[in-house]
Amino acid sequence: MRILLSNDDGIYAPGLQALHDAVKDLGEVTVVAPASEQSAVGHAITLSDPIKARPIQRNGSFSGYAVGGTPADCVKLAVCALLPQKPDLIISGINLGPNTGISVIYSGTVSAATEGTVLGIPSMAISLASYLQPRWDVAARAARQLAQHIARAGLPPDTLLNVNVPNLPADQIKGFAVTRMGRSRFVEKFDRRTDPQGNVYYWMDGDLELLGDVTDTDIDAVNHGYVSLTPIWFDLTHREALPIFRQWRLDWKTD
Amino acid sequence: MRILLSNDDGIYAPGLQALHDAVKDLGEVTVVAPASEQSAVGHAITLSDPIKARPIQRNGSFSGYAVGGTPADCVKLAVCALLPQKPDLIISGINLGPNTGISVIYSGTVSAATEGTVLGIPSMAISLASYLQPRWDVAARAARQLAQHIARAGLPPDTLLNVNVPNLPADQIKGFAVTRMGRSRFVEKFDRRTDPQGNVYYWMDGDLELLGDVTDTDIDAVNHGYVSLTPIWFDLTHREALPIFRQWRLDWKTD
Repeated sequence: MRILLSNDDGIYAPGLQALHDAVKDLGEVTVVAPASEQSAVGHAITLSDPIKARPIQRNGSFSGYAVGGTPADCVKLAVCALLPQKPDLIISGINLGPNTGISVIYSGTVSAATEGTVLGIPSMAISLASYLQPRWDVAARAARQLAQHIARAGLPPDTLLNVNVPNLPADQIKGFAVTRMGRSRFVEKFDRRTDPQGNVYYWMDGDLELLGDVTDTDIDAVNHGYVSLTPIWFDLTHREALPIFRQWRLDWKTD
Repeated sequence: MRILLSNDDGIYAPGLQALHDAVKDLGEVTVVAPASEQSAVGHAITLSDPIKARPIQRNGSFSGYAVGGTPADCVKLAVCALLPQKPDLIISGINLGPNTGISVIYSGTVSAATEGTVLGIPSMAISLASYLQPRWDVAARAARQLAQHIARAGLPPDTLLNVNVPNLPADQIKGFAVTRMGRSRFVEKFDRRTDPQGNVYYWMDGDLELLGDVTDTDIDAVNHGYVSLTPIWFDLTHREALPIFRQWRLDWKTD
């Protein structure tokens, strides 16, 4: 099995190292990850600038490429230019911090797995639901078990697996839960400041707010000690809204 | 009616000016747009850097802010910090080039409207389906008609309207078509080069390839001379895949 690893925290992030160490004996593993941190870049790609790719060899550890681009760039470039053969599995992570609820749409970690899915390769994003004292070993264990399972069972077409792991000791994890993306939003606060030249700038900050019913959501599962498994795709059509728009009966006016 | 305009081509883009001129008499219009081009940034937001916002006054034309950030940053900052009151409608565009099919997930234009929807404000993204000899007047006419309609009819909750206008004379447009996001993918080509210092870099390029049935898709509607109206949301859960994952019956292993 050929496995491609990427992330959005950058090629030297400890979560990526932990992921690598957890799956390195499952096949031929290559790392193609951003040269610098790319958190919250969403599904950005680099079209108007060149993309640099530098071979990386970490002694006794992984080999691969540090890419001067976004997580989606890394996966595109790896699959279409850097790797001699298409990988059988792409894993993005392990992200420092959860990618549940609305965070999914801002997540570079998820976007790397989305790009893999667009390219027709089974792909998984994995995140550890804490920013403090991360238990990489627990998330790495989940990544390994899921990689082995996907190697046997595959993934449905056009579907990536978004995994979030509670930051708990392994023996306190209650199991896996299949979930939907929870409804939530950031309540933004912008801190307004003035630089020494008199220019106004803002720092974005905010708190996550849960919305609606939390049953079966990724957020709720992680809060209750389960590893959440959310099937994600990239068809953004809101099908239930189609009939509403069909009732609009708009006429195109040329006068 | 208070209307907020944004885009991803930057505050001095002709498509934004055309949009402004088309809707300026419908209410109180403010422009908050990126200071520089932000195409293909997806739903990126700026968390680890400050965001500059500079007031702009174009003589005899629009007033607003040029923001040193992404389209999603612009909408967040406008709604949460710059505007005295929440807008009643957000319009993002007019983008130079289509945002149909898979392009939607990379689109900064769509991401501005997505952010508006996350913030609970009726939002629309509008794009002109050509890069050459853009007929801004035709797309602007569509924007105006749709803005007036949304002001009366509203939009369903959690749903933004993604509009794509064929680059045809107004009298050759066949009407509006309610569509789904078409299935397509980019077939990437990476052009490998070496800089004067010997570093390898790549230019990304590619062609769009249609996949599957095109019936009722945005791509097909635009190709046949219709203004496509696609309801888009941000719940990426692939609901049809949930039962497949529920059959996995994975046990969490602690040994």
